[in-house]
Amino acid sequence: MSNLKNVFYAQSGGVTAVINATACGVIETARKNKTRIGKVYAGRNGIIGALTEDLIDTSKETPAAIAALRHTPSGAFGSCRYKLKGLDENRLEYERLVEVFKAHNIGYFFYNGGGDSADTCLKVSQISTKLGFPIQAIHIPKTVDNDLPITDNCPGFGSVAKYIAVSTREASLDVASMCKTSTKVFVVEVMGRHAGWIAAAGGMASNDDVKIPLIILFPEILFDEKTFIATVKEKVEQHGYVSVVVSEGVRNKQGQFLADAGTTDAFGHAQLGGVAPVVANLVRSKLGYKYHWAVADYLQRSARHVASKTDVEQSYAVGKVAVQFALAGKNAVMPAIVRTSNKPYRWKIGEAPLARVANKEKMMPRSFISKDGFGITNKCREYLAPLIKGEDYPPYKKGLPKYVVLKNMPVAKKLNTDFSI
Amino acid sequence: MSNLKNVFYAQSGGVTAVINATACGVIETARKNKTRIGKVYAGRNGIIGALTEDLIDTSKETPAAIAALRHTPSGAFGSCRYKLKGLDENRLEYERLVEVFKAHNIGYFFYNGGGDSADTCLKVSQISTKLGFPIQAIHIPKTVDNDLPITDNCPGFGSVAKYIAVSTREASLDVASMCKTSTKVFVVEVMGRHAGWIAAAGGMASNDDVKIPLIILFPEILFDEKTFIATVKEKVEQHGYVSVVVSEGVRNKQGQFLADAGTTDAFGHAQLGGVAPVVANLVRSKLGYKYHWAVADYLQRSARHVASKTDVEQSYAVGKVAVQFALAGKNAVMPAIVRTSNKPYRWKIGEAPLARVANKEKMMPRSFISKDGFGITNKCREYLAPLIKGEDYPPYKKGLPKYVVLKNMPVAKKLNTDFSI
Repeated sequence: MSNLKNVFYAQSGGVTAVINATACGVIETARKNKTRIGKVYAGRNGIIGALTEDLIDTSKETPAAIAALRHTPSGAFGSCRYKLKGLDENRLEYERLVEVFKAHNIGYFFYNGGGDSADTCLKVSQISTKLGFPIQAIHIPKTVDNDLPITDNCPGFGSVAKYIAVSTREASLDVASMCKTSTKVFVVEVMGRHAGWIAAAGGMASNDDVKIPLIILFPEILFDEKTFIATVKEKVEQHGYVSVVVSEGVRNKQGQFLADAGTTDAFGHAQLGGVAPVVANLVRSKLGYKYHWAVADYLQRSARHVASKTDVEQSYAVGKVAVQFALAGKNAVMPAIVRTSNKPYRWKIGEAPLARVANKEKMMPRSFISKDGFGITNKCREYLAPLIKGEDYPPYKKGLPKYVVLKNMPVAKKLNTDFSI
Repeated sequence: MSNLKNVFYAQSGGVTAVINATACGVIETARKNKTRIGKVYAGRNGIIGALTEDLIDTSKETPAAIAALRHTPSGAFGSCRYKLKGLDENRLEYERLVEVFKAHNIGYFFYNGGGDSADTCLKVSQISTKLGFPIQAIHIPKTVDNDLPITDNCPGFGSVAKYIAVSTREASLDVASMCKTSTKVFVVEVMGRHAGWIAAAGGMASNDDVKIPLIILFPEILFDEKTFIATVKEKVEQHGYVSVVVSEGVRNKQGQFLADAGTTDAFGHAQLGGVAPVVANLVRSKLGYKYHWAVADYLQRSARHVASKTDVEQSYAVGKVAVQFALAGKNAVMPAIVRTSNKPYRWKIGEAPLARVANKEKMMPRSFISKDGFGITNKCREYLAPLIKGEDYPPYKKGLPKYVVLKNMPVAKKLNTDFSI
């Protein structure tokens, strides 16, 4: 058996259309460096796989299967929502990680996730000094919310942005052709609990080629019913229709989520989620316009069929560079996307210290939102344009995308201990 | 001015991702037969354009613009929901049509729509005998609902079916990777008020390549809460998660739409639409599973970016053949898709008498729905497979589909009379 240190790779939090492209970048780059790095073990269901010693041996997968990860959405090894506490609060968990890492000769910890995961990764990076076990922890960015600091944008965001821009354009053309006698207001709900980046992407649906009357409701802007209704009326009177892109995180002036504002379902429960119907019903009650509404939900973040080429390339690149960082001996860092030029768009992968990434949210700058609070500025367009650029279609078989399902063979357990999470 | 008879073409009812491909087929074929047929005038907002003498001169559009209709979703000339009454009930409307047709030398009436439109087209076809004005009325099929009789399938359906199959596959893979600690039940609501064709397409998401635990709720099968909940539980226990594809038209045993079953919104109104949240909340209240839900709404029928190649080709073909029918002197007919072979899939365009099409709905045969009522049979798969086959991507510019917006120049009015609709 080789003495080379193995990699532990885990997917964390909500998955995306391109997180597997990052896994592909990690695994292919590790395989190209077989003389310097051992096997890549993936956590089954993320960090839970490490805690329960449920590891997946990616070396059992064919090169073709690993290459197919590049065009396969979702988390191929399973992800989880599980946040480690601090080392002092739950030392047991960290000791367990060391136990598992030691048993499987793991020297590199790659954690592929968003802000919470960056925090976990930072804590793991401290194992070396605090628990005396040598580990290099590298965080690999991923989040459709696009809210990580330092990196210019987050892998996963560009593809959601493209999906929302394309879908909003398509549905709006539909409404435009029906509005004379039918639907005049179309409401589409998009993700983004705190930051309005995805909602902003809806604004890209309209440009000089195809002009669409739009209203965007950002979580950054408190919802003002009166101005909103007046703006809907104005747009419908001027253009015959309007499309409203509403972020799930929009709040009213009392700070409540609009989605939670008192809706009960057929069974008498408060209804969770669904700000689109709330907004649509408001339009109907105040203006009487016929409406339709859509909630994109998981469709948006899994839509690999219309992924952004820029996003796929960057997602692969951060995985590749994570391995290079590991080989260079780095710890507690994150590969970050650096925009080196806007026209033409150029980017490279830089290095961000994890301490500056963890637990920080990057909100939309106010300068990206138009003065009236209902649209995006040219500055925002310049930022978003390259992120949605380019198509990267998956192969198809029998009319459906040919996504890979891995074998996910377990690594034989070496410990006889259980660990309950 | 030429003596050749002009064409009146109108789009009717809900638009689709490919109805403009049919318009493209009509216009390009008419242009190729300039010695035998005059101009193609389109009704602005469908039949309303004829009644109000609001005609669009398609001859003002460049060949490139007309060619681009083939990849542009929605109704390029505007559509409407407006049903003509019978000739005896509202003779005025028919007399008005004759007046407008006469003024603009129209000899061919092409009506591009679903079941209601076929009925209207049939009535117009009777103008020749009943009002003595020579007109050839040809109905061109279009409906995402796939519920027209005689034709093997309806232009517009294949692309929605592909969208739903692809999206359900993608979102299900997402849920599969999260289900260990998060969402276990995903509900997606699809169109289909009466017939479950679109819901059935969700079943295509799962096949031997990618297996997905699915439950389909068809409008043809009355919703039985107990069996449904038991099936959700069984699938989640077996696979860790389940995806539910629910048709908007699903009813309970009392015959009420589930979507209308008592939900009120924040403003105290009964909430229209949205069967997905009703089903999702039911799962939560009975089983406590974490859920997510999506409502595809217009996104599904406008999704030209993932259109079926078969659908695009057939949509073009019915437009082309409609012109050929007109040149052959036919009246009161519809080009119908005929499946001549299943393996390999082959089709041709046949001729259906309108009297046999109008006001008839083609429901899903019971043999297409599995015994338990929650899935599709192999017979259904064989029927659906070729309809979603092939990709036909639109061109992109700056990351967005390059859809055409026509000039839609009006034809100069020749009448001095108003007509209120």
